Amino acid sequence: MILLVGDGMGDSEITLARNYTVGAAGRLHLDRFPMTGTYTTYSVDKQGRPNYVTDSAASATAWATGHKTVNDRVSKTPDTNRGVPTILELAQRSGLATGSVTTAELTDATPAALTSHVTDRSCQGPADMERCPADTRAAGGPGSIAEQTVAHSVDVLLGGGRQRFEQTITEGPDHGATVLDRARQRGFQVVTDARALGAVRPGRPVLGLFAREELPVAWIGAPATAEGTAPQRCVANRKRLEDIPSLEELTRRAITLLEARARQKGPGKGFFLQVEGASIDKQNHDADPCGQIGETVAFDQAVKAAREYTARHPDTLVITTADHGHSSQIVPMAARPAGLSATLITDEGAPMKVSYGTHAGEEGQEHSGVQVRIAAQGPQAHRVLGTTDQTQLFTTLRTALNLR
Amino acid sequence: MILLVGDGMGDSEITLARNYTVGAAGRLHLDRFPMTGTYTTYSVDKQGRPNYVTDSAASATAWATGHKTVNDRVSKTPDTNRGVPTILELAQRSGLATGSVTTAELTDATPAALTSHVTDRSCQGPADMERCPADTRAAGGPGSIAEQTVAHSVDVLLGGGRQRFEQTITEGPDHGATVLDRARQRGFQVVTDARALGAVRPGRPVLGLFAREELPVAWIGAPATAEGTAPQRCVANRKRLEDIPSLEELTRRAITLLEARARQKGPGKGFFLQVEGASIDKQNHDADPCGQIGETVAFDQAVKAAREYTARHPDTLVITTADHGHSSQIVPMAARPAGLSATLITDEGAPMKVSYGTHAGEEGQEHSGVQVRIAAQGPQAHRVLGTTDQTQLFTTLRTALNLR
Repeated sequence: MILLVGDGMGDSEITLARNYTVGAAGRLHLDRFPMTGTYTTYSVDKQGRPNYVTDSAASATAWATGHKTVNDRVSKTPDTNRGVPTILELAQRSGLATGSVTTAELTDATPAALTSHVTDRSCQGPADMERCPADTRAAGGPGSIAEQTVAHSVDVLLGGGRQRFEQTITEGPDHGATVLDRARQRGFQVVTDARALGAVRPGRPVLGLFAREELPVAWIGAPATAEGTAPQRCVANRKRLEDIPSLEELTRRAITLLEARARQKGPGKGFFLQVEGASIDKQNHDADPCGQIGETVAFDQAVKAAREYTARHPDTLVITTADHGHSSQIVPMAARPAGLSATLITDEGAPMKVSYGTHAGEEGQEHSGVQVRIAAQGPQAHRVLGTTDQTQLFTTLRTALNLR
Repeated sequence: MILLVGDGMGDSEITLARNYTVGAAGRLHLDRFPMTGTYTTYSVDKQGRPNYVTDSAASATAWATGHKTVNDRVSKTPDTNRGVPTILELAQRSGLATGSVTTAELTDATPAALTSHVTDRSCQGPADMERCPADTRAAGGPGSIAEQTVAHSVDVLLGGGRQRFEQTITEGPDHGATVLDRARQRGFQVVTDARALGAVRPGRPVLGLFAREELPVAWIGAPATAEGTAPQRCVANRKRLEDIPSLEELTRRAITLLEARARQKGPGKGFFLQVEGASIDKQNHDADPCGQIGETVAFDQAVKAAREYTARHPDTLVITTADHGHSSQIVPMAARPAGLSATLITDEGAPMKVSYGTHAGEEGQEHSGVQVRIAAQGPQAHRVLGTTDQTQLFTTLRTALNLR
């Protein structure tokens, strides 16, 4: 099965991308799923009381483990700070092939929730462990997100965040080695550009790190301002180099590798793949409508790739959803938003005003607590109908993969 | 069939009401429909180009007639300003019983789109025709929304807006009479309080006008402010008099009357009822979270009434949706919104911050262009799955009612 997550891709962000590209009457690939619903995304505090606005760590923990947790925590409980098995771990135990693709660092919250258990999402590499004293190697813990991710021997890991894997492990049995060293020792084929990714073979796990930090965005434009921008068109990001694959290319390659890997694992073994469009969220925090829409469109191309695969393999469940809503709103042209705003001229030639007003400070825009869309096709797809909760997605994944 | 429309009830407004009342993990009645999807709400300009943020008039015209139109126009085309048949008119032609219930004036945009065709939504009574020169009696037109609504002899009309019906017709064959006079001449039983509504008989059409303007809201509280309110609890609106029925009571009474009326019309004749929760929108414009949530909850009680009916009559299609999204957003407690904000303490005891930032002026908050939820149960309910457009709801209504 393939789970595609648009980080911060609420219904407002979907509508923005649709209006800009295919037009208000057009349809994105993610619009074309037959089964659709909404789900609630709230997180909890340490006492289990609701926190109405989740972050990506608590959110991904919900579907990765079936447990609500506190914001910033990764696949550990809210009260006892205890690790709970993730859907990827359960899939591995059942002999399935597994993969994770993201435009963020592979150690960022959403991919991290599949392959690690840490107290705080900031503990991405061995040098980043300040907020995770219980998880350090010195304390007998499993180490940073990067170390835990490599230790999982996931079949396919494709994204950014090379900097985390280049850090040196300073504690425990592996001290003195970088995380990348450990990855190679564990048999990973490590690649850093599109050509090398094309050359890997499915016999051994693949770690693709295509940028030092997150992958560059697809589109650029003027960010929203207090006075509102002049009407503008978005343009392709020319800093995006050809040797960095698009999310669609990463997704297609991951599917091919996982299909082959699943075949190697034996008859009847399938695969679990998570694909994250991460910078929809990050560009929304930056009040950058072109960046945000470009990333939504890039994500939609990954959805297209997944849907093309399932058209040939109808036994594959494909789900697309978001981890939380975000700030951007489409407002009337006559509105004077209280915060930042921008005007875009869409591909169908009409003006569209976008407002960002959830936070007035320098720290950028905030997530919203709105319920978000979930859509699916394939076996068990009916489970997304109605109003569900993020933790129920865990049950859907487990059921579809026939895991215990 | 029963169509329930929460005016301005986007997914954010639904989540707010759920969190406040039944809690983030709880479920509203409107959450309980088995078939769910989203639909697009954009309107058009006179040349047919998209306007990404609709108003309630163009929006209601879309599902009432299957045609997109320009903002402020009611069931007339965008270019030629020509009236197009509404679902209520088609239902009447087929001999079905028909009804419309609202917390707004019965001449407000959403109910008006069923029972009238005017150039501008402001033309609610005979004295309000300034923006509708082509529609006046003097110009040979059908007159105001109130006049056209009465001329339709709808079986059940329950809501506010008595002021419009008390206006005197000054032109045409009925000049000198009030709209109420005309209603009584046409056989309407006119009632203005709960007791009188309980006493009407289904043999003749019913016009219930329970307030001079819109019906009073269910809940009150401190509106959002630039600095944010102190944490607050919403309270019942004590100005809401006992002789004004709740939306739930109006809905139950309308169903009972329409069921009897349909029986009178002959075997196999059903009914079409539209129920609008209008002040979700109006309180959102006023950045009043308690007002807004109270109206969403009142609407949800009407949904409950409709669902109870369909549980006993599974041949009834019930649909709930919104006409457009709105301004309110749930933001983190640490956020400092750029516009107005308020903090509520929910029934489950947790703080919830609400931000309103779509407009900085005195005119109040703005609609948003976000796609909105549509949910259904009963015959043809599957038609709401996926991503559809508001005009497709017209087709669903027509198909379910077996109209040509």
